Amino acid sequence: MDIITLAHGSGGKMTHELINNLFKKYFSNDILGQGDDSACLEFKAGRMAFTTDSFVVSPVFFKGGNIGKLAVCGTVNDLASAGAKPLYLSCGFIIEEGMPVEELERIVCSMGETAKECGVRIVTGDTKVVQKGAADKVFINTSGIGIIPEGVNVSGRNAKPGDKIIITGNMGDHGCSIFLEREKLDINAEISSDCAPMNKIVEDILNITMDIHVLRDPTRGGLATTLNEIAGQSGVGIKLNEDAIPVRQEVAGVCELLGMDPIYMANEGKMIIILPECHANDVLKALKSNKYGENAAIIGEVTDKPAGRVSIKTVTGGSRIVDMLVGDQLPRIC
Amino acid sequence: MDIITLAHGSGGKMTHELINNLFKKYFSNDILGQGDDSACLEFKAGRMAFTTDSFVVSPVFFKGGNIGKLAVCGTVNDLASAGAKPLYLSCGFIIEEGMPVEELERIVCSMGETAKECGVRIVTGDTKVVQKGAADKVFINTSGIGIIPEGVNVSGRNAKPGDKIIITGNMGDHGCSIFLEREKLDINAEISSDCAPMNKIVEDILNITMDIHVLRDPTRGGLATTLNEIAGQSGVGIKLNEDAIPVRQEVAGVCELLGMDPIYMANEGKMIIILPECHANDVLKALKSNKYGENAAIIGEVTDKPAGRVSIKTVTGGSRIVDMLVGDQLPRIC
Repeated sequence: MDIITLAHGSGGKMTHELINNLFKKYFSNDILGQGDDSACLEFKAGRMAFTTDSFVVSPVFFKGGNIGKLAVCGTVNDLASAGAKPLYLSCGFIIEEGMPVEELERIVCSMGETAKECGVRIVTGDTKVVQKGAADKVFINTSGIGIIPEGVNVSGRNAKPGDKIIITGNMGDHGCSIFLEREKLDINAEISSDCAPMNKIVEDILNITMDIHVLRDPTRGGLATTLNEIAGQSGVGIKLNEDAIPVRQEVAGVCELLGMDPIYMANEGKMIIILPECHANDVLKALKSNKYGENAAIIGEVTDKPAGRVSIKTVTGGSRIVDMLVGDQLPRIC
Repeated sequence: MDIITLAHGSGGKMTHELINNLFKKYFSNDILGQGDDSACLEFKAGRMAFTTDSFVVSPVFFKGGNIGKLAVCGTVNDLASAGAKPLYLSCGFIIEEGMPVEELERIVCSMGETAKECGVRIVTGDTKVVQKGAADKVFINTSGIGIIPEGVNVSGRNAKPGDKIIITGNMGDHGCSIFLEREKLDINAEISSDCAPMNKIVEDILNITMDIHVLRDPTRGGLATTLNEIAGQSGVGIKLNEDAIPVRQEVAGVCELLGMDPIYMANEGKMIIILPECHANDVLKALKSNKYGENAAIIGEVTDKPAGRVSIKTVTGGSRIVDMLVGDQLPRIC
């Protein structure tokens, strides 16, 4: 079998072969092996986080990752944003007829490896195949379940005036990398996607203090849009210092050339942390010793007003309002 | 806003408008309203079922339902197949740029109504938009979580020799309906999809006896493929009586005309029940008084051998092996 055919999505013999020869090879675990339509999971009493994301990134392979790695990291990071320890993932594939099996295998292999790094198990799945031209190569949905440790209460509604805002690293790497990859621009810049799981870094932070108010990964719409969401949910103002926001020099250069702003560019391996000032330096120090947090920085603070507004003190000393992303800077970034 | 644009999938302003004006209108519940990336759910200790399904049916509107109703029923039915009480759903939309908002609204409205009928809440979601031609109108993923009551132990691995096999109604309605709709065949047959939630019927059955061995909905690949899966999982034989299998006359007629077999046609509102003979008549009687079980019938039994094989006693008195679906009878049925 060299290419995916409609019969692989029929639910019949070829679907079973695909599941047994490909998916189970890379996602192997006891629960997935049971073969029922639902995975059966044991739980202790408590609070659970549940989330879903569909991935349609184009191209499916890019510097620093591929749609499979992204699909695992994206959902793991959404669970981590609730302060949860991610445990189980589902995955649903929608595949375009004619996709080379070798490409699918690289994607699935990458999902298996990333799940292993995160300590999550892919326990249930689904495969559909659509005719050539009815989808663009492959779309992946991952949904996830995690356990929220007792004492953790993290939400976009919890930002408080006086809180500090930390970002775990450079802004815009993912968006910029996808843009260069897709447009095949002849720009000589070594930029990779930052695609990475944030659950271990969140675990580290919560080990320092449970008194974390907000965690959120600034994906589509970037830092600016995500902070606007939080300002709206919490009914607070947010003030940023432009010169504190870490941006890789190459990303800043490409953005300037193309008239884009790194704070609106998508990230796939970064976390916004909003927390009481008293914990900010300890958390920052811990982040900097983690491979995914080397460039972490305190970039601003929460104010009581103007409620729902994000503003930025620019490098030149001025101040401007930073709105949500309007329109679409870059489609199919994730 | 008349049509869906790429900006609706940007994660920015228009995505938020779509969520607030459309999704929250029909999916309203406390948990979804919180606005975080993960839904936070309280759980008691116990066993949980977790499942996922992507829906790519074409056309998206058909007699008896649409892709939205199907997406809710499909995942609810997979949870019910584990004997679980479905509680929470996620939904992920992949929308083709240019889709009329009015069509999306009909689909979302239908999802809201079906979720209400099932007693489940849609608590988390995701929206992606891809360029015109990169998807076929709309694809929907639903993942779901349900609670498995104590004492229930239902699995495709549990069929035992001597067990009876019940099917809750007529075979092939969904597959046949989609086929007629898609091919616009000039056949004068009033056939609707059977798309319906099976969770209440499963609850009724488990109220009669917890001693149910297998539950499974015969969707893609139909009754024949699903029974082959179960025979394989349990290492048993299955013997069917062809003249006991309920098939609507119109469906039988269309299948004969087109050279298809109703036992390979997809169903979206039926359940296979495998249980000890001593409970079969009580369960059958209860099913017949349920609107989704009026045509229920005992269609065969489990044997010790040949292990993994399904055979059928034909109307003319012969016997033949019934294999899994090979190839693809009908793509994009769900």
